[in-house]
Amino acid sequence: MKSGYFEVRMKLLEQRILKDGKVFPGNVLKVNSFLNHQLDVGLLDEMGAEIMRLFEGEKITKILTIETSGIAIACAAARCFGVPVLFAKKEKTKNLSDNNYQTEVASFTHGNVSTVVCSKDFLFENDRVLIIDDFIADGNALIGLIDLCSQAGAEVAGCVGAIEKAFQGGGDKVRAMGFRVEALAKIKSMTDNTVEFCE
Amino acid sequence: MKSGYFEVRMKLLEQRILKDGKVFPGNVLKVNSFLNHQLDVGLLDEMGAEIMRLFEGEKITKILTIETSGIAIACAAARCFGVPVLFAKKEKTKNLSDNNYQTEVASFTHGNVSTVVCSKDFLFENDRVLIIDDFIADGNALIGLIDLCSQAGAEVAGCVGAIEKAFQGGGDKVRAMGFRVEALAKIKSMTDNTVEFCE
Repeated sequence: MKSGYFEVRMKLLEQRILKDGKVFPGNVLKVNSFLNHQLDVGLLDEMGAEIMRLFEGEKITKILTIETSGIAIACAAARCFGVPVLFAKKEKTKNLSDNNYQTEVASFTHGNVSTVVCSKDFLFENDRVLIIDDFIADGNALIGLIDLCSQAGAEVAGCVGAIEKAFQGGGDKVRAMGFRVEALAKIKSMTDNTVEFCE
Repeated sequence: MKSGYFEVRMKLLEQRILKDGKVFPGNVLKVNSFLNHQLDVGLLDEMGAEIMRLFEGEKITKILTIETSGIAIACAAARCFGVPVLFAKKEKTKNLSDNNYQTEVASFTHGNVSTVVCSKDFLFENDRVLIIDDFIADGNALIGLIDLCSQAGAEVAGCVGAIEKAFQGGGDKVRAMGFRVEALAKIKSMTDNTVEFCE
C-alpha cells in the first residue's frame, strides 16, 4: 500500500508535468523547464528520496544511467543510497577502447542509433546495480544498460524511469524480461493538450 | 584568509586527483573514476558546499553549465544556493530553433567545434548567473557560456572550474575579460606521473 508521503511526492511530479510539460507531435513530451534542460534540484531531491524508498534494502552498490538527462536524477538518488553513479557514454566514433563494455541503443527521441559504452574499470561482477533514466519510451535505453551490466556479470536490482510513457510499451517489455521496473510518473496517454496518468 | 575547513575540502579534491587522476599525452587529465564517468556524490557535495562558500552573498539566481560533465557539479552547488541549474546543450545539427541563444565552442579534449545552445525560456535579463564547469583548459567553454548570458542580458557573477589547468591560460584569459574565476583545484603543471598544484 502506498504511503501518504509517496502520494504527495508522486503528485509533485505529475502536477509538474501537467503544469510545465509540453506535448509535441510524435508522442514527444518536453520537460525542459525542470528535468531536461533547466533542472529543478528540489524536485530532483524528492525523486531521489522516492527512488530510495522503492529500492531500500535492495543492497544497491551502484547506480547506472546514460548521458545526458539521467545524470541529475541518478545523482539525487545516489546521494540517498550512498553509492557512486556511473553514467554510460554515447560515442560518436567507432574508435573504441578494449577497456569498455559497449552496446547499441536506438533513440526514440533522436531517431538514431548510438554506441553506448562504459569502462570495465567501474562495473563489476559483484555489483548490484540500479538503473535510472529520465524517460522510459520503447525501453531501448534500459535494455542497453542491462546489456552493459550483463557483460560485466553485474546483477540488475531494478530499473527506474522518472517518466514512463506506458502506452509505448517499453516498460512492460523490460518487465517481461524479468526485471523490476518502476516509474515515478506513468503516463497512460497524451494528446496535444492533455496528459493522463495510470492509476 | 582561507578557513581550515576550506583547506580540508580543497585537499580532498587535490588528493583525489593525485590518487585517481590519470595524465595522458597532450595535457589530458582523466578523472573518470570520480568526476567524468563514475561520479563520487559525496565529493560532489563537498565541492558544491565550497562553491557556495566562495559565492555566498552574491545573489545568484541561476547556475549555468554545459553538458555533460558539468551537470553533476552544477546540481551539487545549486542545491546549496537553492536555485535552478540550466545546462547548455551541444547540438549536432545546425537545425536550430529561433527560441535559442547559441554560440560556438571549440573543445580542447575532443578537438572539434560544437554549437552550444540554451533556450530563451530559461535565461533572463534579471538573472545573476554563476557558471560552473568541470575543467578550465583554454577557457573556450566558459567564454561560450558567458556569451549565452550576454545574449540574454543576464549578469555573470562569476565562473567556477572544478579543476583549472592553469598552465593552459584559459582561466587567466577569462579573468582578463573582467570576470571572477575560481577553481577548486588549480594545476600548475603536470607530467606523465606527477601533478603539481598552484599554491
